Amino acid sequence: MSPILLNGIGTVNDHSEYIEPEVPFKNPQIHVKNPHLDTMEEDILYHFNLGTKTHNLPGMFGDIKFVCVGGSANRMKSFAQFIHQELALPGNMDAITDICEGTDRYSMYKVGPVLSISHGMGVPSISIMLHELIKLLHHARCIDFVLFRIGTSGGVGLAPGTVVVTDKAVDCFFRAQFEQVVLGKVITRSTELDVGVSKELLQCSSELEDVPTIIGNTMCTSDFYEGQGRLDGALCSFSTEDKLEYLRKAYNTGVRNIEMESTVFAAMCHACGIKAAVVCVTLLNRFDGDQISTPHDVLVEYQQRPQVLVAHFIKKRLGLIV
Amino acid sequence: MSPILLNGIGTVNDHSEYIEPEVPFKNPQIHVKNPHLDTMEEDILYHFNLGTKTHNLPGMFGDIKFVCVGGSANRMKSFAQFIHQELALPGNMDAITDICEGTDRYSMYKVGPVLSISHGMGVPSISIMLHELIKLLHHARCIDFVLFRIGTSGGVGLAPGTVVVTDKAVDCFFRAQFEQVVLGKVITRSTELDVGVSKELLQCSSELEDVPTIIGNTMCTSDFYEGQGRLDGALCSFSTEDKLEYLRKAYNTGVRNIEMESTVFAAMCHACGIKAAVVCVTLLNRFDGDQISTPHDVLVEYQQRPQVLVAHFIKKRLGLIV
Repeated sequence: MSPILLNGIGTVNDHSEYIEPEVPFKNPQIHVKNPHLDTMEEDILYHFNLGTKTHNLPGMFGDIKFVCVGGSANRMKSFAQFIHQELALPGNMDAITDICEGTDRYSMYKVGPVLSISHGMGVPSISIMLHELIKLLHHARCIDFVLFRIGTSGGVGLAPGTVVVTDKAVDCFFRAQFEQVVLGKVITRSTELDVGVSKELLQCSSELEDVPTIIGNTMCTSDFYEGQGRLDGALCSFSTEDKLEYLRKAYNTGVRNIEMESTVFAAMCHACGIKAAVVCVTLLNRFDGDQISTPHDVLVEYQQRPQVLVAHFIKKRLGLIV
Repeated sequence: MSPILLNGIGTVNDHSEYIEPEVPFKNPQIHVKNPHLDTMEEDILYHFNLGTKTHNLPGMFGDIKFVCVGGSANRMKSFAQFIHQELALPGNMDAITDICEGTDRYSMYKVGPVLSISHGMGVPSISIMLHELIKLLHHARCIDFVLFRIGTSGGVGLAPGTVVVTDKAVDCFFRAQFEQVVLGKVITRSTELDVGVSKELLQCSSELEDVPTIIGNTMCTSDFYEGQGRLDGALCSFSTEDKLEYLRKAYNTGVRNIEMESTVFAAMCHACGIKAAVVCVTLLNRFDGDQISTPHDVLVEYQQRPQVLVAHFIKKRLGLIV
């Protein structure tokens, strides 16, 4: 196979050495890194049930300034309704409809300049959504927007309910990188996120009550049970001490929470020059256990914290709060 | 960290050498490979919104003999309604309700001895579901059941609409194995599936019209675009010729379709001694293109083929067809 040309979206050789991809500037212009797209007569965004010939994407999405993604479809619908309320937009918030209702792969809601989309669980599920979202924003000619992942996670040495704004998204070996296999070769990409947006979010948290927030590293795993050192999966071959030792190692490298999407989210946003942040609440402290046994109403309140924080950020950016 | 003890669920050392895990016998007894489970007072199956203290799992699920899983929640609901019809069960098929309705992570429907569950897209999403499903079947004391994944895929050198029953589930390097990172160490597991069930499915297809079926290898990737050599993602750094060369290599190793869940599905079923098969229809021939532009009604008919095939298998096993 001829060597892969990379156009600044990571690098590969037979030893998969890492070279920082070059992103000359971030937003306003989004950088879709695919020369083939220009040659396509039509682009069908299959998992959104949208397309460039069937939909007027600039008309539908051209005014987007904030994109918020999260795993659960129900949560992203509630977030859209919450933002509708917070921005005091006209119309009935219960009338907000799923733009992707023709498919059940993802749900998408638009409220004013805010787009709210679900991405399911895990790196592959969010990566399909991100490929199509980035193409959607490109086709819609969106400029100068911010992309947030608002999710849930397991905490590492934190009180449950703490919101973690991700400093570095790291893999299960605590490396701030994402490995993508392309045509059978491993490409390594940077998982650098936007420091300015993270600091702005931390400032926002200081202006809110009941949204305890820190900046820390987020570990992204491909498995919820064995991959995160849980003792309660169908398969478990290690001891409680092995688990705690792994969590201590993670903590000592700066990891404060564990989820399943942050590395590919950070890598794709970095490669395309998109300002992005990961904002996840911790549902439990993994040093204290594995099972999520917190009462439902408490979990619901925890899950609202990243939404409240990002809503505050959006309102400040829109000048609705001085 | 002390060495990881593996109890026949794969093996690891610092070089991650592969040793076939020992599974002394398959079904009737399911082998949950986790000594910690016996010490737990309660097991909360968080992503199903079910638990051993809150639900009578043997009463709810003890009679299950066939479990069918697929990515889309809508498709798995239609499958449950289709099976209800095919087995001529009493009651209104439209009244079938989602057992997991308290959460939107997965959907689950029970019709007689058949359980139908959605698993989302990608290895991490299906692996969370499988951990909780295997524990569910264990807690429910289910014996002598068969587990099917019925899904969609991209074809490699096949006419669209062909159903592929998986011989070997292979990774993106064409290896019949699954790598799971456990506490920062790579464990390699066998992706061996049940040959008897595959042959039985092929026999069933010969008794049906309009369900063209073959047995071939299925490649499982962690990405739908770059990972499958698509030219139409937000990121693409390779040429059409690079893509075709990779697909030709895949074809020459026996790969006939590409999807995103089969390796972990096969590995977890093998480790737990569960008889399992992967049955996916191809929506397009990847040698001819990347975009799924086939008319909606044709895609719907294609997606029914694995359902029709597995329904025929179930009816034969239940003696409803001689």
